[in-house]
This record gives sequence, C-alpha cells and structure tokens, in this order.
Amino acid sequence: MALSKTAHIVTAYGEELDQLADELARMGGMVETQLETALAAIVRRDASLVAGVREREKQVNAMQDDVEKRVLRLFALRQPLATDLRMTISALKIANDLERVGDLAKNIAYRAEDLAEYAPLSLLDQVERLGAIVVKQLHEVLDALSSADVEPAIRVWRTDDEVDERYNALVRQMLMSMTEDPGQVEPGVHILFVAKNLERIGDHATNVAEAVHFMVTAGPLEADDAKS
Amino acid sequence: MALSKTAHIVTAYGEELDQLADELARMGGMVETQLETALAAIVRRDASLVAGVREREKQVNAMQDDVEKRVLRLFALRQPLATDLRMTISALKIANDLERVGDLAKNIAYRAEDLAEYAPLSLLDQVERLGAIVVKQLHEVLDALSSADVEPAIRVWRTDDEVDERYNALVRQMLMSMTEDPGQVEPGVHILFVAKNLERIGDHATNVAEAVHFMVTAGPLEADDAKS
Repeated sequence: MALSKTAHIVTAYGEELDQLADELARMGGMVETQLETALAAIVRRDASLVAGVREREKQVNAMQDDVEKRVLRLFALRQPLATDLRMTISALKIANDLERVGDLAKNIAYRAEDLAEYAPLSLLDQVERLGAIVVKQLHEVLDALSSADVEPAIRVWRTDDEVDERYNALVRQMLMSMTEDPGQVEPGVHILFVAKNLERIGDHATNVAEAVHFMVTAGPLEADDAKS
Repeated sequence: MALSKTAHIVTAYGEELDQLADELARMGGMVETQLETALAAIVRRDASLVAGVREREKQVNAMQDDVEKRVLRLFALRQPLATDLRMTISALKIANDLERVGDLAKNIAYRAEDLAEYAPLSLLDQVERLGAIVVKQLHEVLDALSSADVEPAIRVWRTDDEVDERYNALVRQMLMSMTEDPGQVEPGVHILFVAKNLERIGDHATNVAEAVHFMVTAGPLEADDAKS
C-alpha cells in the first residue's frame, strides 16, 4: 500500500514534468508558425496574414502564463531538485524567450501592413534569406529542446555570427538605397526594423540554445565550445 | 540547543533572501546609471562615454548570473514557499528584464559612436525628452521594487501609453525629415533605433512593474487597475 502510494506520487510528479515539457514544445511550435507566417506576410506583402499572427500571439502569451503557473506549482508542491530543478528553471527561461520571439514575429507582421502600400522594394530577397536562416535556427533549437540533445543547440550557437553578418550587410545596402532614392526611405525603415527583429529572434534562439545546454549538461555553453 | 540551531537556520535563510533583494537593487542601480550615461552620450554626442556603458554591461551580466545562482541555491536548499517563492521567482524575471535594459542601453550608447560624425541632428530634443520619461519610469519601478510598494509600479504602468505616443510622433517626424533631406537618412536611422530602444526599455520597466505587483499582491496587474 505504501509502495503503491509512493509509486503513484512519483508517476504524478513525472507526469507534471512531462506536461511542462509538452506545453513548452507546443509553445515552440506555435511561435515557429508565427514567425513563418510573419515572414510570408513580408515577402509576399500580404497583409491578410497579419490577423493570424496576432491571434497566435494571444495563445502564445496564454501558454507562457500556463508554463509559469505549472513551474510555480512544481516549486510549491514538489520542490524539484538536481536535473528536475534545472529542467524547471530552464522551462521558465525558455518560455520567456519564446514569448519574446512571438512578440517580435508579431512586430514583423505589423510591418507587412505598412509595406503593402509600396511598389517594388529593395533588398527583399536578402530579408527572405535572413529570415530563412533564423527560422532554421528556431527549428533546430526546438529540436534540441524536445530531444534534450546539445548538438543542434551548439549548431544554433555557431550560426549566430552568420546572422549578424548578413544583418549588417543588409543595413549597409539599405542605407545606400535610401540615401539615393527618397522613395525608399519609408519602406526602407520598415525593412530595417524587420531585419533587426530577425536578428533579435536569432539572439533569442541562441538564448534557448544556452538554456537547453544548461538543462542537459548543467554547464554553460561557452564561446570556446561553441564558436570553434 | 535545538531551538538555537533552528533560529540560526531561519536567520540564514532570511539573510539569503535579503542578499538576493540587495543584489537585485544593486543591479537596478547599475542599469539606471548605464541608461543615463548612454543618453548623455547620444544627446551630447560624446562617444567617450561609451566605454563606461560597455564596462557596466559586463558587470550587469555578472550580476544576473549571480541572481540566478542565488535563486537556484534557494530553490535547492530552502524550497521557498508562498511569499518567499513569489519573491524568488520574481527576482529571476526582474533580473532578466534589467539585463535586457542594460543591453538596450549599451545599444543606445553604440549609436553615439555612429552619430558623433554627423553635424546638426534633427529631433534630438525629442529623443532627450523620451529618454527622460523612460529614465523616470525605470527609477520609479526600482523604487517600487525596493519598497515593495505597488503604487509607483502602477504609475509606471500608466506612463507606458505616453511613451508609445511620443515614440510614434518622433518616428513620423523623422521619416519626413529623412525623405526631405538625404543627409538625414543615416543619422536618422540611428536616432530611430535609439528611440525604439527607449520604447522597449519602457516595456521592460512595465514588465518589472508587473513582477513587483505580483510579488506584493500575488495577483496580476491588469489593464483595469492600471490604465484608468
């Protein structure tokens, strides 16, 4: 009887941790769809996609609240230790980063509404390429999270420099285009903010990579391991 | 003997919570100085101030790591409950927001280096005014944190709309100025990013206000309480 009661409690605790991991994975999937839709809205200049991104942002925020409530309940009732404690603390950080990605995706989508009124846009192909790299980063880091595998997390870390380089090149070219042609000033500023938001989503993917690394290894992901 | 040992443990736990609060207050003070220095660098276009902001950012990052380590230790060894649990979880969130503010202040300071080479700049007075409001928000929310008082936290929440309005007005005017004068394109983009960073620091101050409200009242800071 005592044994079966203990086993029951252990199972319930394990279930709570599994549910937390599931919620985080669902949140990641939702954010990934948001980002892909936001990028499609920019590249196709299709403002009709914006409402869907905004709708998903509410769901992402609700999911973050849910993750926080689950973590608080785990701390209060279960007092997790060692690996479970790291997993629980990391869940809180990862949910925070994913919520920020959702928010940035929403900001990107809003720019599609501003951009829809302009005719040909400079450098949209470069935005598309930058976006594709960042989407891949997000996808890989979510894989790393669900498989608790550090290898894709380290790959995401390594890609961060490439994102920064592409972003900087885009800024330089856009400033030149805007200086030469006043008609490019307003759309150019929107594109620059889209690019900045993509660069920052890349930073959040890197943060998630660090959190996954800490969760799995209990150690920090240092420049020495990762940038070589 | 048993009593004195218990009293000793209780005191040590209370001390650990106090130290966590102190570290957070120190981190807040450091970030506030960073922001003020970054704004001075922009307004006076004095790139010599940038090194100090960068130096402080390293200290702020170290402080965030320290807060996280303290929180992990508290969870592992003390299993905080109720008010202490809320305080500990909130410390983690607030340290995260303060680190972001430090990072944004550093980004603002870097723009001072880019701006130093330009002669008269449009709309710098408006950047200065927006900056002053955001500095005040940060100051008030840190007061709310150290006094565990929800009133200044609610005031910070209420100021968020004003920050957004001033930011939007600045963007409109800057786009006009850049379209009319190609010489304003490059410095104008830097100013727009500075303004965006200020607006986001305002958002982080609002997040801290929400965390302080939750810490003190155990309830969320809703639009109904706060925006009226």
